[in-house]
Amino acid sequence: MNFGIVGYSGRMGREIKEVFKDHYLCLTVDEGTEHIENTPDMIIDFSSFNATFRTIELCREHNAGLVIGTTSLKPEHFSGLRDLSLSVPVIQSFNFSMGINLLKRILQDFSECFLGWDLAITETHHVKKKDAPSGTAILLKEAVGRTSDCVSLRLGGVPGDHQVIFANEGEVVTFSHRAISRKVFAMGALKAAEFGLTRDRGFYSFEEVLLCRQKQ
Amino acid sequence: MNFGIVGYSGRMGREIKEVFKDHYLCLTVDEGTEHIENTPDMIIDFSSFNATFRTIELCREHNAGLVIGTTSLKPEHFSGLRDLSLSVPVIQSFNFSMGINLLKRILQDFSECFLGWDLAITETHHVKKKDAPSGTAILLKEAVGRTSDCVSLRLGGVPGDHQVIFANEGEVVTFSHRAISRKVFAMGALKAAEFGLTRDRGFYSFEEVLLCRQKQ
Amino acid sequence: MNFGIVGYSGRMGREIKEVFKDHYLCLTVDEGTEHIENTPDMIIDFSSFNATFRTIELCREHNAGLVIGTTSLKPEHFSGLRDLSLSVPVIQSFNFSMGINLLKRILQDFSECFLGWDLAITETHHVKKKDAPSGTAILLKEAVGRTSDCVSLRLGGVPGDHQVIFANEGEVVTFSHRAISRKVFAMGALKAAEFGLTRDRGFYSFEEVLLCRQKQ
Amino acid sequence: MNFGIVGYSGRMGREIKEVFKDHYLCLTVDEGTEHIENTPDMIIDFSSFNATFRTIELCREHNAGLVIGTTSLKPEHFSGLRDLSLSVPVIQSFNFSMGINLLKRILQDFSECFLGWDLAITETHHVKKKDAPSGTAILLKEAVGRTSDCVSLRLGGVPGDHQVIFANEGEVVTFSHRAISRKVFAMGALKAAEFGLTRDRGFYSFEEVLLCRQKQ
Repeated sequence: MNFGIVGYSGRMGREIKEVFKDHYLCLTVDEGTEHIENTPDMIIDFSSFNATFRTIELCREHNAGLVIGTTSLKPEHFSGLRDLSLSVPVIQSFNFSMGINLLKRILQDFSECFLGWDLAITETHHVKKKDAPSGTAILLKEAVGRTSDCVSLRLGGVPGDHQVIFANEGEVVTFSHRAISRKVFAMGALKAAEFGLTRDRGFYSFEEVLLCRQKQ
Repeated sequence: MNFGIVGYSGRMGREIKEVFKDHYLCLTVDEGTEHIENTPDMIIDFSSFNATFRTIELCREHNAGLVIGTTSLKPEHFSGLRDLSLSVPVIQSFNFSMGINLLKRILQDFSECFLGWDLAITETHHVKKKDAPSGTAILLKEAVGRTSDCVSLRLGGVPGDHQVIFANEGEVVTFSHRAISRKVFAMGALKAAEFGLTRDRGFYSFEEVLLCRQKQ
Repeated sequence: MNFGIVGYSGRMGREIKEVFKDHYLCLTVDEGTEHIENTPDMIIDFSSFNATFRTIELCREHNAGLVIGTTSLKPEHFSGLRDLSLSVPVIQSFNFSMGINLLKRILQDFSECFLGWDLAITETHHVKKKDAPSGTAILLKEAVGRTSDCVSLRLGGVPGDHQVIFANEGEVVTFSHRAISRKVFAMGALKAAEFGLTRDRGFYSFEEVLLCRQKQ
Repeated sequence: MNFGIVGYSGRMGREIKEVFKDHYLCLTVDEGTEHIENTPDMIIDFSSFNATFRTIELCREHNAGLVIGTTSLKPEHFSGLRDLSLSVPVIQSFNFSMGINLLKRILQDFSECFLGWDLAITETHHVKKKDAPSGTAILLKEAVGRTSDCVSLRLGGVPGDHQVIFANEGEVVTFSHRAISRKVFAMGALKAAEFGLTRDRGFYSFEEVLLCRQKQ
């Protein structure tokens, strides 16, 4: 695949470049600079929402699909992305970790089976993380669909652990996720880009990417 | 509910009595002795397959549903149980732990989403357990539907831990089950008996009991 | 060894009887009843402080050593026990779990090495436990000798898990204890009683019992 | 502190530079190139044993202490290092993780207290790791001083987890170590370098660095 990276010089940009190393990087965008060598099939953007409108223009220009993991998108950005998705595939998510998205789906499908069980959600992150509970813990809690205590630990350099624990008198069932590095998000972007290549147009969540095989 | 216990004096019999304490125990059966005070709605049998044919007769006699967790059942026992299920509800399983049955179902539904991830299954049991890997580890492996290393530890008095671990370059997802005591199986029997009260007849697995709410 | 149990009919009494089954139970005491068949070498008391003075008398009468795990002892009980320890061995502790006492000692000896690391203590117990954090979590925290967040989960029937977690930028070290059943305390009592048989007199903590081999 | 790095351009070199960022890097050495701006107090070498003799010369030349984490050192290297340690402090270890060295020491001091408990050692590493069990698992096993099963899992990108598990009938005690990144070794090197600044001469293990406070 020919691909482009918006936010090429940032931390996620570097991870994406590394994970997509079997593909041809033909477009790089940073604040104020754009380099193009060829027409991209897919553009990957995990940068800031300040870049989003320019990213949309670039996709239109090159008829390229889009994988966008930018956070804090506003309604006007979503409008732009929806419009774009009428002509090319757009895959949008706030969390491109495969594991978290699978757990979310599992919890949505099965949490009813755990009615009557006690529930706790725990998460551990590095001490520099300021918000607690983490956005991902909130996402998992919403997937379960019940009120729950959510316990947050801030310890050393832990990249991110999450646990959803169900227990009754006789047994404990735990769903755990552990991030090893931010590479996980770049790997999710690659999976999404490969999915995009198989579609003509449409607006997709990362969950749909992951579950497409299962649904067929 | 009025209920009966086959294998009343055994370890599981005592657990069942304790867990069903809000219901009326009106029939108790042990090798060579039967006590009956009233007509049971459901009969619970976690004893030996030597008892199975007599249990079937008792169910017919009293038009009672059956929850049967006896292991090592042979084809002739299954024939008898199938026949019985034409007139009353029969719930049969080799493992009445709710957690294990839910994990099994989750793995069956979602293991395809973990293609390309590394897989390991681990289990820890008390040192008196002779077989390794445990039957439950094998069941979980079959639910995943892939070959996998299965690591067994035999340590102290651990009642039974199981883990199914998926990992890729960037993340680890773990499904864990921990048994606290054998009470868990009696609790599963109660859930199955309550389900049986809502059915006229039919042969059911414990999985169907657990997932009935979800399916409706 | 010939031994006696004070609080014979209680939950701990039954566990002690089971764990001491290779020894000769020759004295049993319950509120209002005493049965004696022979002279005990050691008396085991995990009952109420209401029984303590009578227990001390019995030890004097039979020149028997004492293992006492009764909680909420008052200064007058300790005076009585100290006096008794001038003639026989007395082993007293509020927690006869071997694992917890070893962790306590390890943390006392090594916590200084973890200065500069982040610290968290977590504990999980069954939902019927009313106090939080657990007495054992407080004991472990005191052993570390630093202020620390202490996170408590109350979930299903979990007998008791404790974790002391140290983390820095690059690594995480965790000390974990998991209780399987209350049998653990009876096993500690047996170890203490065997230790008592080797001493003429003196007042000992359970820690001293556990570390005697190491110190020699 | 003024410091130098041998193996400046390698992976560990970069980690060391990052972790020592509050100090003045005044000497860098790579195969075939040396840059010097000032006299180093300490030299850090985690490169190849091919570099060791030149490193020793540099230490002599500048009267600098040495922290050396190079693996596969041969007897002639050790002779050289011992000679050097007559004039400057030399801190040598095959594993500069603080956590692993502390666990090793704890296990050496306390494993006798766990006689009679079952023991298992487990380790999990990324799939590219070829040896099993890991050198660290072997080191921990030797610290316990008993034969033990050692279970190895190779899964995804896990940097390195180790567990030493003791269990009896009633309880489980687990000592766990989890590496977050190779930064941990650079942090150990910094601690060793700071220790070196306080000594005139001598040959030290990393364990002595970690335990110096405790011993005083």
